[in-house]
Amino acid sequence: MSNSIKKLAVLGSTGSIGQQVLDIVKDFPGKFRAVGLAGGKNTSLLAKQINQFQPELVYSPLKLNIPDKTKFSSMEEIATHPEVDIVIIATSGKAGLAPTLAAIRSGKKIALANKEALVMAGEIIMAEAKRHQAQILPIDSEHSAIWQCLSGEKAEVARLILTASGGPFYHHSPTQLAKVTVEEALRHPTWKMGRKVTIDSATLMNKGLEAIEAHWLFSIPFSKIDIAIHPQSIIHSLVEFADGSLKAQLSIPDMRFPIQYALSYPKRLANPRLPRIDLAQLNSLTLETINYSMFPCLQLALDAGKKGGTYPAVLCAADEIAVELFLEQYISFLDIAETVAKTIGLHQGITKPTLDEILAADEWARDTALKITKKESTCSKQ
Amino acid sequence: MSNSIKKLAVLGSTGSIGQQVLDIVKDFPGKFRAVGLAGGKNTSLLAKQINQFQPELVYSPLKLNIPDKTKFSSMEEIATHPEVDIVIIATSGKAGLAPTLAAIRSGKKIALANKEALVMAGEIIMAEAKRHQAQILPIDSEHSAIWQCLSGEKAEVARLILTASGGPFYHHSPTQLAKVTVEEALRHPTWKMGRKVTIDSATLMNKGLEAIEAHWLFSIPFSKIDIAIHPQSIIHSLVEFADGSLKAQLSIPDMRFPIQYALSYPKRLANPRLPRIDLAQLNSLTLETINYSMFPCLQLALDAGKKGGTYPAVLCAADEIAVELFLEQYISFLDIAETVAKTIGLHQGITKPTLDEILAADEWARDTALKITKKESTCSKQ
Repeated sequence: MSNSIKKLAVLGSTGSIGQQVLDIVKDFPGKFRAVGLAGGKNTSLLAKQINQFQPELVYSPLKLNIPDKTKFSSMEEIATHPEVDIVIIATSGKAGLAPTLAAIRSGKKIALANKEALVMAGEIIMAEAKRHQAQILPIDSEHSAIWQCLSGEKAEVARLILTASGGPFYHHSPTQLAKVTVEEALRHPTWKMGRKVTIDSATLMNKGLEAIEAHWLFSIPFSKIDIAIHPQSIIHSLVEFADGSLKAQLSIPDMRFPIQYALSYPKRLANPRLPRIDLAQLNSLTLETINYSMFPCLQLALDAGKKGGTYPAVLCAADEIAVELFLEQYISFLDIAETVAKTIGLHQGITKPTLDEILAADEWARDTALKITKKESTCSKQ
Repeated sequence: MSNSIKKLAVLGSTGSIGQQVLDIVKDFPGKFRAVGLAGGKNTSLLAKQINQFQPELVYSPLKLNIPDKTKFSSMEEIATHPEVDIVIIATSGKAGLAPTLAAIRSGKKIALANKEALVMAGEIIMAEAKRHQAQILPIDSEHSAIWQCLSGEKAEVARLILTASGGPFYHHSPTQLAKVTVEEALRHPTWKMGRKVTIDSATLMNKGLEAIEAHWLFSIPFSKIDIAIHPQSIIHSLVEFADGSLKAQLSIPDMRFPIQYALSYPKRLANPRLPRIDLAQLNSLTLETINYSMFPCLQLALDAGKKGGTYPAVLCAADEIAVELFLEQYISFLDIAETVAKTIGLHQGITKPTLDEILAADEWARDTALKITKKESTCSKQ
């Protein structure tokens, strides 16, 4: 039955999430077909993907030879193509924003792995999704866990508990944190992810962005979002209901679980290639309250989320610049939070911003973060 | 709005579960009303309950003065009374069987705390429930957890993991087990329950009965039911789905959680009298595979469940006698399993039994268990 095959547009197909989306497509040739691929700078991988999945539409930012029957398109064209059932937004940074909105406006199902879209423009995105009855299916493991726990529930949510592995530096002292190298920061204890999100996990900025995402996805006030350190990364999040009962979702930490769930929803598919939990792996599950003072990025994100308006966009943009500069060994690990804090401190927020105002705030924040780090680096050289 | 009040029949109102059901009724006078109460031998408590809840119908096995407007009735009359919306079966032992069937046949919602009904006659009960479209809402914490985890799921279940605290003797050696006193066996580490179920928890017979219940309630083969030792009694059970993802339900161990959920389903009610979980209570959750050889009662129950027919009824009856004799200090803790095993060994099972055949097997097992223990006790006196 050809109409039971879900047709996918994978934006960001060459990134870590995009590749895993295509792993799932490969695992279920009778269930999913990738009709559109949008890659990044890794053109050799994109060429390989095109060869393997034979998509009808391709976006590439760089030059690339493609088969005759494949057509070059913009990300928006791919995201809104009439054949597409689900648009997977796995691009990183603000690049996901425009195609997400385009897909929403054409009423597609959106499987959202890109955090920045919701963080920057959550209010606009959720309002548009409601207007166009476009379903947003989270792909982040934490949001997928919450979504799974909410399944079939008619009850009020008392609290969301996002779990965080704590990253590689959870037990570091401030002195140790000051000396962290790029290599150490890229060595995440439980998850294999892209470079940007791995650094964001080490600063816990990632968890703060996830709290903002959760706020929008599940329309939950920040006062009802808690974060718990769970170093085993087995419990992907918990929901506490009005009656005091909680539900948790668990699996081996492997992004293919939330990806496959979003693609197969409301069904679940048996996939022998996914690792099964063994009871022995549940022999010690720990959840601890988080020490916010250790992770200034987390607090900055929560504060920006609560302030709303253009602040989350500024947070995102400043963080993107700061992480990039850290990866280039231009600033230190602790400078990441410092740079973000200073940028936010200089921002004049706009409430209920338009998309253009959000994008302008993003530009402003990038420039400002760069200027701040340049000035500091000049100062320290004196 | 009087029609939003759910009218309850509480069979076994003076037992541990019955009292907690009435606690919930008391907590929500605008939501629930106890229109029928069936008590046990504790007539002074039953009198108090009648005075407090002013039910229309009462069953008492012993003489009792009741108000003029209250009427004596049989358990079946209470369970099938037209006004009743939910029948709570909180009687212990086989006494729950007849009223459960009567309630099912009049299409009531059944909130089932009595294990024996499903263990003895699961096939008949589930078939009747299907025929009369009577919903069975589990009240046991493990089954409530599974039910909550299955909420909204369209996916195939790969495995149910019933959690067991392990009872007070999980780390005892066989020599230590031989010397266990009644007082020690009644000291459950996490749950406050009635005497029979507390002893069944110490032998893990209770977990075996729960596996049989789960088999019927969720139509899951025994090969897909696992048991894990979870001494904290916070995770009440887990469901593993076809895709390898698991859901767990958690709360402070307090029977009012599953009771309230069954009564308020599909809603959940905020109840300030119920204890909330604090993150600190989740700082060490452990799940271990169970050592079956340590707990012969568990293995006996699983074997009886797999054999089916009249075997589970024989198991139940022999266990009821053996536990009673242990509580009377007539046999030792290890003799409980011994008595059940010998009784089952002597039984000639009937497949697809009628209710009468099940009740006859029950009678036979009680006599046989008694004879076995008498003979042994006579022998040991020689």
